[in-house]
Amino acid sequence: MLPPTTTAIRSWRPPKPRSSLFTRGLSGLTINSGRLMETLHQTCQWGAAHPYGKSRDSHHRTIRALADSHAAKTSAATETGMARLALDDDDARVRRWFASETEKLGCHNTTDQMGNMFARQAGSLGSPAPMTAMGSHLDTQPRGGRYDGILGVMAALEVLRTLKDKGRKTKYDLGAINWTNEEGARFPKSMVSSAVWSGSIPLEDAYSLADIFNPQATMESELRRHGFIGDIPCSSNANPIGAHFELHIEQGPILEDDGKKLGVVQGAQAYKWLTVTVNGRDAHTGTTPMAARRDPILAVAKMIAASNAIARESDALASTGIIKIPPGSSTNTLASQASFSLDIRHPHDDVVAGVVSRCLESFKQIAAGDGKGVDISWTLDTDSPAIKFDPECIKVVQQSADELVGPDGWLPLTSGAGHDSVETNKRCPTTMIFVPCRNGVSHHPEEYCSPEDCAIGTQALLEAVLKYDELRATKDN
Amino acid sequence: MLPPTTTAIRSWRPPKPRSSLFTRGLSGLTINSGRLMETLHQTCQWGAAHPYGKSRDSHHRTIRALADSHAAKTSAATETGMARLALDDDDARVRRWFASETEKLGCHNTTDQMGNMFARQAGSLGSPAPMTAMGSHLDTQPRGGRYDGILGVMAALEVLRTLKDKGRKTKYDLGAINWTNEEGARFPKSMVSSAVWSGSIPLEDAYSLADIFNPQATMESELRRHGFIGDIPCSSNANPIGAHFELHIEQGPILEDDGKKLGVVQGAQAYKWLTVTVNGRDAHTGTTPMAARRDPILAVAKMIAASNAIARESDALASTGIIKIPPGSSTNTLASQASFSLDIRHPHDDVVAGVVSRCLESFKQIAAGDGKGVDISWTLDTDSPAIKFDPECIKVVQQSADELVGPDGWLPLTSGAGHDSVETNKRCPTTMIFVPCRNGVSHHPEEYCSPEDCAIGTQALLEAVLKYDELRATKDN
Repeated sequence: MLPPTTTAIRSWRPPKPRSSLFTRGLSGLTINSGRLMETLHQTCQWGAAHPYGKSRDSHHRTIRALADSHAAKTSAATETGMARLALDDDDARVRRWFASETEKLGCHNTTDQMGNMFARQAGSLGSPAPMTAMGSHLDTQPRGGRYDGILGVMAALEVLRTLKDKGRKTKYDLGAINWTNEEGARFPKSMVSSAVWSGSIPLEDAYSLADIFNPQATMESELRRHGFIGDIPCSSNANPIGAHFELHIEQGPILEDDGKKLGVVQGAQAYKWLTVTVNGRDAHTGTTPMAARRDPILAVAKMIAASNAIARESDALASTGIIKIPPGSSTNTLASQASFSLDIRHPHDDVVAGVVSRCLESFKQIAAGDGKGVDISWTLDTDSPAIKFDPECIKVVQQSADELVGPDGWLPLTSGAGHDSVETNKRCPTTMIFVPCRNGVSHHPEEYCSPEDCAIGTQALLEAVLKYDELRATKDN
Repeated sequence: MLPPTTTAIRSWRPPKPRSSLFTRGLSGLTINSGRLMETLHQTCQWGAAHPYGKSRDSHHRTIRALADSHAAKTSAATETGMARLALDDDDARVRRWFASETEKLGCHNTTDQMGNMFARQAGSLGSPAPMTAMGSHLDTQPRGGRYDGILGVMAALEVLRTLKDKGRKTKYDLGAINWTNEEGARFPKSMVSSAVWSGSIPLEDAYSLADIFNPQATMESELRRHGFIGDIPCSSNANPIGAHFELHIEQGPILEDDGKKLGVVQGAQAYKWLTVTVNGRDAHTGTTPMAARRDPILAVAKMIAASNAIARESDALASTGIIKIPPGSSTNTLASQASFSLDIRHPHDDVVAGVVSRCLESFKQIAAGDGKGVDISWTLDTDSPAIKFDPECIKVVQQSADELVGPDGWLPLTSGAGHDSVETNKRCPTTMIFVPCRNGVSHHPEEYCSPEDCAIGTQALLEAVLKYDELRATKDN
């Protein structure tokens, strides 16, 4: 039996730990939130796009008027989205900057065959064991924001900077990772480089991915052009990591709606993506009686409505982002074909499977239901089982959250989206920390996480990796 | 109160006439059905496209194999559709051919400013009164067939040829008309030249219509290029016609399904075309709970399904031919906007108005119904009231149908589509004769009307215009 859920991506709060057992107290270190935000926005100079709010307004003002208000200009400067596509020139710039900053901290930097960047800060033990890693990505959607992925890398850097500033060392090596092309927006495969690292995707398949607008540019050719093909294999065997912690904006509205500051991520939802194609007959809308029609658009409309109703019965998510009809369609002609994407998600594999199965059953009935019926076919394009993150990683994050924002200040969540952490979780202990984002908006220029929330998340990341470092030491003894 | 209808485009059979009053018997003339079909297919050499059946198969055979079978080749030759767009080079060829053939019959030919072609065969009275006309069009859809429009012009020519052959003259002048650009496929306004003639559209508006693929080519420039701008005004005042009869394929399945040979067309349906636009919020499908969504595609799906259900309650037609979503949509992002076309039809104006009104009411409820709701707006793009054809024209067609195929061989129908006759009906007594087309298919390469049905329709056209000629004479005396 499945536990009831109030929404598909809200998880169950684990039993409250006895504080004596888990609480070891905060580190006494405090991240520099001003530096964190300054660094984040500074690096967003590479790829800034899609101004909004004051920034957009400023495009309608004269330069002279702008010059009158330095304050307005400064504030407006951060009110843009981002268009920093994987391995474009701006991505190359921010990557070089990241290498340079981590070198300044004394990190040992390596890059693998997929351009994944590993910055390793030596621990006090001098242990050759794999580092505890804090990873995320610096690439964005074409109409993306300043926080998705970017915050995770900036937070990792801020943790390393804080430790360095205070002369504090972890026992085991600690590091930051920038995974290449998490978004899959330019080279169309999300999390492709962490997936090569985890062994889910062959290197050659990733190399051959072409720019969606320029088939001449592949991941390999762009990595080569920028000099980003490193000398170590992209492989969790050849280049293992000890654990992977990722700070990320929630990309949904739950934390904000509930007034919570942190999400302790338990895992990631299962999801299946289908493309459903309906074939009918193009016919004149004025001369074809309802009973004589084979109308694919009507059938698709009913199927989308039905999938939504079926998913709701199971507290699952059903979403259609794409509807396609043939070119040259017109108001007075029924289309010959229509197709749509269907994305079904729930934290439990069997719920997803059940919803998909009931949808397809319903679609068959709908296909036979109007006029002379339509033909239906479908493909299963993606089948991603539910992911459970590592209990010990979750535990140290939860403990840090309790200490930082109190037991009522955080929520256990299940990630609705895919992340590099889903790939690392296959090969090493992994979890994620979520922070609220305004109105739940992500993959959008207006994506926003307040400086306070960025700081709380980064502090939680710091506390969690320090606790995990202690845990590793305890286990090794 | 409205009469009940079984389908939206099936009309009520008028009270059966007492045969003594109306039946005057057949003319004793018989059209040449072999010549009719030979001429029709011969002229389809100009614009033949989209082979299907044997013809398509032949493209996969070698020329040698084809040459072995003259019969197969001959049959295959007619198994193509047509792409003879208004005022393209093929349309120019068939127009010149039409002028030449009608001249051979001794017709007095004129062309008006819109290139509408009038071929006038002198009657025995030598009356200057406007001619009784048989009109349709020679242009086709880009993926059209060999019968829509073409049959009507070929039948008119065959009637003129039959009269000439037999030395038979009508009392009043009788003629054939080829209306320019009925389809509106290349220059995007249907029935544009008959509409200029009827005074519905200013000449300048029609002249400035541009080729949908080549903005440099306008109707005026293409008429001029081919030398088709005639010296008489395109105007029902300056160039009136006495009556307009149009033979046309039904473009729907009713006659075929009912085993009837002729449709006596009572008028044309009312219709309204709307574009409905729904605005929501693009959001991640994995991270956005159902309750937080503003999902335009879901709302549009429900609206299309609702419009269909609402129309059915009134035996009206509701059709969506176009759905649009923003470019760059993806499986895991809810769209920010979706829009759809809505085409509502019924023989009665008030039924159409009622269905539209109930649809919009329902759309508002749907817009508020899911998640955080969506915004809705709409435009009324076309508003075409119901058309009633002329009772006397209908009467002579009905009488001819009774005599040719018996009272059970024909049906009273309401045209579901627009035709040049809808425009002529504004200025002169008009009606149409429908013949069955295979599977109700039209605007499609496989559009087909059997030689027998083409012949019956053409014979009915001949009988009807002869009866109408008698009626005119009776009325004038």
